[in-house]
Amino acid sequence: MFWKEKETEKNKMEEKQVIDWLKVHCLPKDVRVKTGIGDDSAVVDYDSKSYLLFTNDAVVENVHFKLKTATFEQIGRKALAVNISDIAAMGGIPVWALVSLGLQEKRASVFKEIYRGILEMANLFKVDIIGGNLSRSHTFFVDIFLAGIVEKKNLVLRSTAKPEDILFVTGTLGGAQKEKQFRFLPRVKEARAIIEHTKPSAMIDLSDGLASDARKLAEASGCGFEIEVSQIPISIDASRKNRISSALYDGEDYELLFAVAKDSETKIPERIGDLKITKIGRLTERKTFLLKYPDGKKIRISKEKFRHFS
Amino acid sequence: MFWKEKETEKNKMEEKQVIDWLKVHCLPKDVRVKTGIGDDSAVVDYDSKSYLLFTNDAVVENVHFKLKTATFEQIGRKALAVNISDIAAMGGIPVWALVSLGLQEKRASVFKEIYRGILEMANLFKVDIIGGNLSRSHTFFVDIFLAGIVEKKNLVLRSTAKPEDILFVTGTLGGAQKEKQFRFLPRVKEARAIIEHTKPSAMIDLSDGLASDARKLAEASGCGFEIEVSQIPISIDASRKNRISSALYDGEDYELLFAVAKDSETKIPERIGDLKITKIGRLTERKTFLLKYPDGKKIRISKEKFRHFS
Repeated sequence: MFWKEKETEKNKMEEKQVIDWLKVHCLPKDVRVKTGIGDDSAVVDYDSKSYLLFTNDAVVENVHFKLKTATFEQIGRKALAVNISDIAAMGGIPVWALVSLGLQEKRASVFKEIYRGILEMANLFKVDIIGGNLSRSHTFFVDIFLAGIVEKKNLVLRSTAKPEDILFVTGTLGGAQKEKQFRFLPRVKEARAIIEHTKPSAMIDLSDGLASDARKLAEASGCGFEIEVSQIPISIDASRKNRISSALYDGEDYELLFAVAKDSETKIPERIGDLKITKIGRLTERKTFLLKYPDGKKIRISKEKFRHFS
Repeated sequence: MFWKEKETEKNKMEEKQVIDWLKVHCLPKDVRVKTGIGDDSAVVDYDSKSYLLFTNDAVVENVHFKLKTATFEQIGRKALAVNISDIAAMGGIPVWALVSLGLQEKRASVFKEIYRGILEMANLFKVDIIGGNLSRSHTFFVDIFLAGIVEKKNLVLRSTAKPEDILFVTGTLGGAQKEKQFRFLPRVKEARAIIEHTKPSAMIDLSDGLASDARKLAEASGCGFEIEVSQIPISIDASRKNRISSALYDGEDYELLFAVAKDSETKIPERIGDLKITKIGRLTERKTFLLKYPDGKKIRISKEKFRHFS
């Protein structure tokens, strides 16, 4: 959840440096904290059978949306949905949210429209809005803090996969920045259905694009990956110019990428309800990030691709 | 915690309208939620003996600070401190925070300085930073979500005072926007010491100024108040031109205002450690907000005063 933004050359610290710095300087001292910075959500003791999950994501004007092309309702809806997606990626159920709005003074009256979007999503996923804040801000933002609950036995981290685990992805990828970013449904039910079939060894939600998020899962688990390009499920919304690049780098899909031990591979169904589940590759011991083409050629994803598109 | 900002005529919805709208539209459905929107923190079931508290407050460039007159370290420190103050006002102990930063790209490198301030405060109050987010944003903001824990028997709301309860305030008030806003220590220990002496019937932290926050406590409890002007403990930092107005309306004091049943009044000590505790007035059945002067004259605080200074 840290530093999800598109990086540019001007940023002297890369995402990984930021997270590594934070991991060292924000080492939790409270024994109730099971996982701090570095996963989709933080994990804290709740009761004997379950953990609390905490996540936070902001959507910011001119970075995540433009007011010319998105309604306040869409922005509110998305702001909660991206957080619900982070809870889904841990196997959890979202429960309580705090909503922090930054609005220009003259825009105070639009807050009902923002809330219409937030509450639509909240009602759909039975999330209670229990607090928050409203600040004046020249730049409009919606910053949501979401708590979730997950049974201890169902908790899935992104850091616990192993080499040779099989990678699966839900749904189809690419072109989500056109429309899907405002209408996607976070994969809460689907994540829990997958866990019932067989618990993934690791899971992450796809916010920055398959390539970038697969790298995060692989790196957190101390692995590399090999993705079979021909297997990537490409959305009809993907760019027609370069459909594979679109599916790999566009981002905003909010599908799930998960790993499963090789001997449990067959336990994963082809569909969960209407949602397609596709095997797209595997994790590798060698820490390289490879795309495998049908002719057998393997191409390493360049730093540039990660940096410019993730 | 909602709508703490200075209101202007341009804002068509007044703070109370916003909160009333939210209370109606965000009515918690989860039985674990004891108190949703409308207090310093939300209150949720934790274990048999304690509640979880959740609060959120943002500090935003050119609204809560100017980069010409505050260092990033000061801003980081304050951003966490104002949230700790909200937990203190419920009688709780802060435990876990998520930190959401909005920074211009070129400012990414200053994030260590912001964290220096946040971590200073976090270490002082044993708060773990367990997650958060970093976004690009044209307007710089630090938005913190803080969880706390309070023993059920120690929970103090702002809505449970009664007419004739006596009002007390910690410390001294006024002029805090000069320096104190960046160096104050939230009154966590002091709140808990007060509760040990006698549990207040209601408590609130003073962020918007004594007049405005006393009104919030009184209104939440269905009361009015009468504050004895001569009893207000005025800070040496208060404006020399009008010391009483400064103490009533400046804001940013982050002291505690609390109410105590009349028959428990004597249980409140004059000091907690080095911190002065001062009796400043009482709650009233009549829902008016009065200042009582030494000559016996009572003046109603005008809407203008509330609106322009709170």
